[in-house]
Amino acid sequence: MKNSVITASYLIIGDEILSGRTQDQNLNYIAKGLVEIGVVLKEVRVVADNESEIIEAVNHLRQKYDYLFTSGGIGPTHDDITSAAVAKAFNDDLIKNKEAEQILIKHYGIERINDAVLKMAHIPAKAKLLDNPVSSAPGFIMENVIVMAGVPKIMQAMFEIAKKSLITGEKIKSKELTITLTESQIAKELTDLQNKFSDISIGSYPFQGGTNLVFRSVNLEKLDDCVNQMINIINAKHENSIINSQ
Amino acid sequence: MKNSVITASYLIIGDEILSGRTQDQNLNYIAKGLVEIGVVLKEVRVVADNESEIIEAVNHLRQKYDYLFTSGGIGPTHDDITSAAVAKAFNDDLIKNKEAEQILIKHYGIERINDAVLKMAHIPAKAKLLDNPVSSAPGFIMENVIVMAGVPKIMQAMFEIAKKSLITGEKIKSKELTITLTESQIAKELTDLQNKFSDISIGSYPFQGGTNLVFRSVNLEKLDDCVNQMINIINAKHENSIINSQ
Repeated sequence: MKNSVITASYLIIGDEILSGRTQDQNLNYIAKGLVEIGVVLKEVRVVADNESEIIEAVNHLRQKYDYLFTSGGIGPTHDDITSAAVAKAFNDDLIKNKEAEQILIKHYGIERINDAVLKMAHIPAKAKLLDNPVSSAPGFIMENVIVMAGVPKIMQAMFEIAKKSLITGEKIKSKELTITLTESQIAKELTDLQNKFSDISIGSYPFQGGTNLVFRSVNLEKLDDCVNQMINIINAKHENSIINSQ
Repeated sequence: MKNSVITASYLIIGDEILSGRTQDQNLNYIAKGLVEIGVVLKEVRVVADNESEIIEAVNHLRQKYDYLFTSGGIGPTHDDITSAAVAKAFNDDLIKNKEAEQILIKHYGIERINDAVLKMAHIPAKAKLLDNPVSSAPGFIMENVIVMAGVPKIMQAMFEIAKKSLITGEKIKSKELTITLTESQIAKELTDLQNKFSDISIGSYPFQGGTNLVFRSVNLEKLDDCVNQMINIINAKHENSIINSQ
């Protein structure tokens, strides 16, 4: 049985997210995908298309967590600087990868190949290609860093491929109670329960008309025990206030 | 005329974003709101409800940028630890703020006041309250750190109030061209133009069937000049490939 915790981080690279031009659609997809395979997403950062900022974030996150995913900045234009920045972060050379070049020639046709297209074949010398089944230009994996495109459809396809090669941990199970009580009505009982079940993460999220309680753990037996105790506490406090349990 | 650049960062605090349970809706709102007032959002981070992670991020971001906005973790339950963490980040005491207490008593009614409700009146001793016109429990401002709720409706109301007290910079103007050419077809010309206009940020974003070119600068005259030159370049290269200009 696996039981070590595998951690991940995610770096979103792009002025367009920080300027509000583009609404991020990738974080939630990655977060959900990692939960499914038992990898714990611990931190996310968004930085601009700025080399020193990218290098600093890449080096911090790849050393702190088991995996770092990045998205954005691997296209053909001047503002696509992720591959070069990642190479620098690893003190590696950015070189034209022959396999990537062949993929691009096949996709674009030799008559449409130019320096901009070939820019997308340049990856760190020690990196391995990450397939792009949507638009061919590949991402890459450099040690524990998975470098993906920013366009959601392409990012998703790359992520699904990269996922298969990850070392995964024990899957975190999750239960949720939706109740009509407000957070402040059950805060004390939640604190007591959290103190009793220290290895279960209990989250409390208010909404107009009630509260969602989320219980998360790798241990299904303890999770059920904790949720059942909470159900009893709530029922004793106020009957019929649980409106959903899943 | 104002001309210094005012920078900001944003820290999203909450397990629910990292676990994928909740899709972030706040980043894009804040990003757009800051652009409107000439404050440049430079970095965003998402961390879990973990005291040391929050403290580390708060101290880094508040020192690096002119402003730090945070959202999440100021409710009444055990997993709401932002106020305490921010107090520790500043080596300040977390105390019951009397004005906040009165606001909560007025909103909840004395019969519903308990320790959980009063937890929301505890803010750093040197902080000032930030009004919450939606559900009363206030956020706070501690030096250059603006601490807001995570619920989008409440965050938005707090952000709009906090915005009024910020030192703002020169507003960044933005122009956008939508063209039917692919990125790799105009990458060289874009690079040349970017080199010519070093104080204009040119972004290139592909979509199925074309490319969006975004030009951003505080200098409207230079911006117009740059965009007009790009229009001429595109027209010379391929007539009728500009499908939108705004």
